[in-house]
Amino acid sequence: MTGSIFRPGADPFTERTPRVVAARKLTRRAEREKTGRFLAEGVNAVTSALSHGTVHELFVTERAAAAHPELVAAAPRVSPITDRAAAGLSETVTPQGIIAVCSLVDRPLETVLDSARLVVVLVDVAEPGNAGTVIRVADAAGADAVVLAGDTVDPHNGKSVRAAAGSTFQVPLARARDIPSVLTALRSAGLRTLAAHGYAATSLETVHFGDPVAWIFGNEAHGLSEHVLAAVDEAVRIPLYGKAESLNLATAAAVCVYTAAMAAHR
Amino acid sequence: MTGSIFRPGADPFTERTPRVVAARKLTRRAEREKTGRFLAEGVNAVTSALSHGTVHELFVTERAAAAHPELVAAAPRVSPITDRAAAGLSETVTPQGIIAVCSLVDRPLETVLDSARLVVVLVDVAEPGNAGTVIRVADAAGADAVVLAGDTVDPHNGKSVRAAAGSTFQVPLARARDIPSVLTALRSAGLRTLAAHGYAATSLETVHFGDPVAWIFGNEAHGLSEHVLAAVDEAVRIPLYGKAESLNLATAAAVCVYTAAMAAHR
Repeated sequence: MTGSIFRPGADPFTERTPRVVAARKLTRRAEREKTGRFLAEGVNAVTSALSHGTVHELFVTERAAAAHPELVAAAPRVSPITDRAAAGLSETVTPQGIIAVCSLVDRPLETVLDSARLVVVLVDVAEPGNAGTVIRVADAAGADAVVLAGDTVDPHNGKSVRAAAGSTFQVPLARARDIPSVLTALRSAGLRTLAAHGYAATSLETVHFGDPVAWIFGNEAHGLSEHVLAAVDEAVRIPLYGKAESLNLATAAAVCVYTAAMAAHR
Repeated sequence: MTGSIFRPGADPFTERTPRVVAARKLTRRAEREKTGRFLAEGVNAVTSALSHGTVHELFVTERAAAAHPELVAAAPRVSPITDRAAAGLSETVTPQGIIAVCSLVDRPLETVLDSARLVVVLVDVAEPGNAGTVIRVADAAGADAVVLAGDTVDPHNGKSVRAAAGSTFQVPLARARDIPSVLTALRSAGLRTLAAHGYAATSLETVHFGDPVAWIFGNEAHGLSEHVLAAVDEAVRIPLYGKAESLNLATAAAVCVYTAAMAAHR
């Protein structure tokens, strides 16, 4: 199959080809919402997207097609593109030349919480790379769902998809703007709600894990609001044994979520 | 004291003032090695640098001086700069207008390992932000030292200093090019050497912590060499309970180092 789409006489799409122009618009959130589609770039993300059957079209450069014939063979529709078109669709400095147009992956909140035992909730997280990294951590830890609540960035953002390294398609995702109703839904699903908070009285070392839990993480700069902290079952701090005053969001989430996951598997 | 350095008639330094031109060269590794100095930018890093007495000179814009009079008061030498000069010294998109020229902080390997109980070693880590984030994690977890081994990036790099959020000055750092002699030094210091490795037979869940340990992490793309894996006491994998194939370096280090630290404090 390799390279067959790059046959002589069939020019690859350029950055001005209407299909490429339309796909490029998917780098904007409004266009993603309107069309229900987004872009997944790179081998990791495309492999995962294809195995989950969410791909509509695969844009691929000649070099990338030659390097990954199995991905080209698995795609429902393959469109050859120039290197320049690939750079236009890419949100990275070093485009990999392989980009899939996929259906949005998020689901209604209630469906992802059903019989969940470990859930990760992001409230007002601003940085797409952080959201993607936490989605990857949640997937690795075997979380049943990630909920992107309040003003949290869109997990279909290119930087988030890249940081998630395929996990965007592997862990159920839900988006919900209203934070109080997320907390209600978590509790209705039988999940104990734990808020990560630097000044909490309870230290992670002393938390007993066994019951189903939802870990809640706040904005990178401002953390969680007093409202959320008052509404959760428990606020928990990561013990700081040295002189650092805090951890960043992604490493804090890794410590909290893995501590719960390893305890549950013990 | 506030703003007194910005008195009428005394113009702030511009990007062409020789002292600023000389400081700007410290964004290059070769210049840092030659002069034994580096730049620490932002309130977190400058606060930490000042409290450790490593600051030679503080460059500050009028706005930053007004916002942080306590830092201006604590600096041995303060030089007012224009916003444009601040942008030139900064390696970030949004300069904070406060940059300290500091002495390099790394120490000889043997001195940082003396009676250490938790050490973090980075081998051939390429991305400065990752090195800085792991330095912050190590500090938070109460590690006694971070060793930057082999071809690992310079921890005095601006991106590393920023990601470390002050921890560059708070946790003892050593640099050592020769990896076998680092492993020998760790063992001589009585540390059990654990290598983080995705395909290790031993899972983190089953590791007993109690003795002093050194955690060893490899390059972002290639991990640790067979040589290092063969030389350590044990290779350890983080259990992957979901579908993700791995974690990124910083989150993997957070899980490993905190699991050891929390066990040691139990």
